[in-house]
Amino acid sequence: MSTFEEFTGTGPRIDALQYGNWSEKIFRQMREGGVDAVHVTIAYHEMFRETVANIETWNRMFERFPDLIFHGKWASDVALARRTGRTAIFFGFQNPSPIEDDIGLVEIVHALGARFMQLTYNNQSLLATGCYEAEDPGLTRMGKQVIREMNRVGLVVDMSHSAERSTLEAVEHSERPIVVTHANPSFWHAALRNKSNDVLKALGRSSGMFGFSLYPHHLKDKSECTLESFCEMVARTAEMVGVDCLGLGSDLCQDQPDSVVDWMRAGRWTKEVDYGEGSATHRAFPEQPSWFRDNRDFGNISEGLRARGFSAEEVGKIMGGNWLRFFEENFIPS
Amino acid sequence: MSTFEEFTGTGPRIDALQYGNWSEKIFRQMREGGVDAVHVTIAYHEMFRETVANIETWNRMFERFPDLIFHGKWASDVALARRTGRTAIFFGFQNPSPIEDDIGLVEIVHALGARFMQLTYNNQSLLATGCYEAEDPGLTRMGKQVIREMNRVGLVVDMSHSAERSTLEAVEHSERPIVVTHANPSFWHAALRNKSNDVLKALGRSSGMFGFSLYPHHLKDKSECTLESFCEMVARTAEMVGVDCLGLGSDLCQDQPDSVVDWMRAGRWTKEVDYGEGSATHRAFPEQPSWFRDNRDFGNISEGLRARGFSAEEVGKIMGGNWLRFFEENFIPS
Repeated sequence: MSTFEEFTGTGPRIDALQYGNWSEKIFRQMREGGVDAVHVTIAYHEMFRETVANIETWNRMFERFPDLIFHGKWASDVALARRTGRTAIFFGFQNPSPIEDDIGLVEIVHALGARFMQLTYNNQSLLATGCYEAEDPGLTRMGKQVIREMNRVGLVVDMSHSAERSTLEAVEHSERPIVVTHANPSFWHAALRNKSNDVLKALGRSSGMFGFSLYPHHLKDKSECTLESFCEMVARTAEMVGVDCLGLGSDLCQDQPDSVVDWMRAGRWTKEVDYGEGSATHRAFPEQPSWFRDNRDFGNISEGLRARGFSAEEVGKIMGGNWLRFFEENFIPS
Repeated sequence: MSTFEEFTGTGPRIDALQYGNWSEKIFRQMREGGVDAVHVTIAYHEMFRETVANIETWNRMFERFPDLIFHGKWASDVALARRTGRTAIFFGFQNPSPIEDDIGLVEIVHALGARFMQLTYNNQSLLATGCYEAEDPGLTRMGKQVIREMNRVGLVVDMSHSAERSTLEAVEHSERPIVVTHANPSFWHAALRNKSNDVLKALGRSSGMFGFSLYPHHLKDKSECTLESFCEMVARTAEMVGVDCLGLGSDLCQDQPDSVVDWMRAGRWTKEVDYGEGSATHRAFPEQPSWFRDNRDFGNISEGLRARGFSAEEVGKIMGGNWLRFFEENFIPS
């Protein structure tokens, strides 16, 4: 950021995770909300060929809405987005299913634009253990190999849905910093998906990044969570690990039918219903808190952070400056 | 080319088609022969996922031999190759099988580095008619759509193995120039794979390119063809269409076992033996002419062209200057 941007807090605005039912409406809301870049999920359980089909769908959207969005590949695309008044869309996976059992696909998916890959989505994967498994034996043999290859090509390790030991081992094993794109600290709201102080501190020490989630299941009081409570949580996290490793990863799943959350949770790994973070009585997508309904509401968060006592410079870092620095350092081959 | 390069004939040396049994030996021979860039075939009959596996194999070679080769994606990589004393490897397909029945894969394979795609390999494809079919009904409905998409993303239409009408229709239908990467004029050697004067003239009129082949089945007197006869053929072609649309596409298939020529010819489309350009008594790969055994012998051709009366500037164009100009204009999205 320039000094002016630091002063005014008008640096880049970056959301490190969304999975919307994409439409012109959402892209226009991104513009209204001044969102310069979004990391979008393009695979939950999809294998390689299905993931490529999802990229093809995105390519058609890039062709249809060239004035609103474009495919973001490098940190410099955030500046391009700001210069041209558009939103750069960065691809990522919430599961390693797109690389199947083939380490060579790591470089292939990076060439196709993937920039983040979770090593697990809730369950055990070929690489590591998910946060819903009873036991966490840590990184697998293939997991260690794939992390090294991800480091080499510039595909960022994301442990948002991973279990504790696997996450700490990934921080240790990875030669480049890793991230949790979307979660909250468990000291604030003790959910299986939220992260321990040990994980937060390990990310802070290793130049990693932690993206705060706005998904109600990750929030204290869920849909009733207040902006003040959210900003207080950010402040307490910053006191513990510093402000430079913090950003946003809203986990906004806008306009999705509830069949999609069923797919996210159950994929093809079970024939039964898996409620994930929900329950039999609360199976659907939860309602967003009133102060963060969609992409138009990022301004509420920056105002809330200012009100909580963060400086304009600090707010600029949390709203996107830190993610931009991370993009600059970690999307290119090593 | 700079004036100096035009004068000395030391412009870029580009071969617009090879399909070797790739090895360090061949890459070292490319360096010995001063070959700055090679368009290599990475698919004959492979579908998408198999083509990706072939790219993975190339990626491993780029990792293993970084001092000899690298993945060429843009025209500027030819300059990079010359500056760093390496050979830039450009990918292409001799068949549209890698895009299967999915027009969205055109952009995907371009993102993975593909720069040339033949619309057919000898047989009828989903897009056009191959040179060995009895009937040539011209471009198909999908063929016209795919050409438009190839034009948009910067994937060059190659009609080397296509039939006459399909080829002329492709020249007409394509908004960007098309190529025959590897063939010879049929006025010199009447083979089904060689091209009529009409095709040569159409390429010349449309800023297309024609790459002369060194594959014995495309040569007059096959393996016994003389350098003088080859250069005479180049001269007669240049008289007809000018020198600016001419280059080399050697079709060198070095060190391949004969099982590979069987695969090239029969793929999975027949259970019988197809002899292609060969015959029951000459089924194997033919022997190269003595003056063009491998990548070390490009100097023989430039000397032969000089001896036939081409100027140093003209020789520079044919040896790679024309292909470089074509790369500059046609690999980027329109």
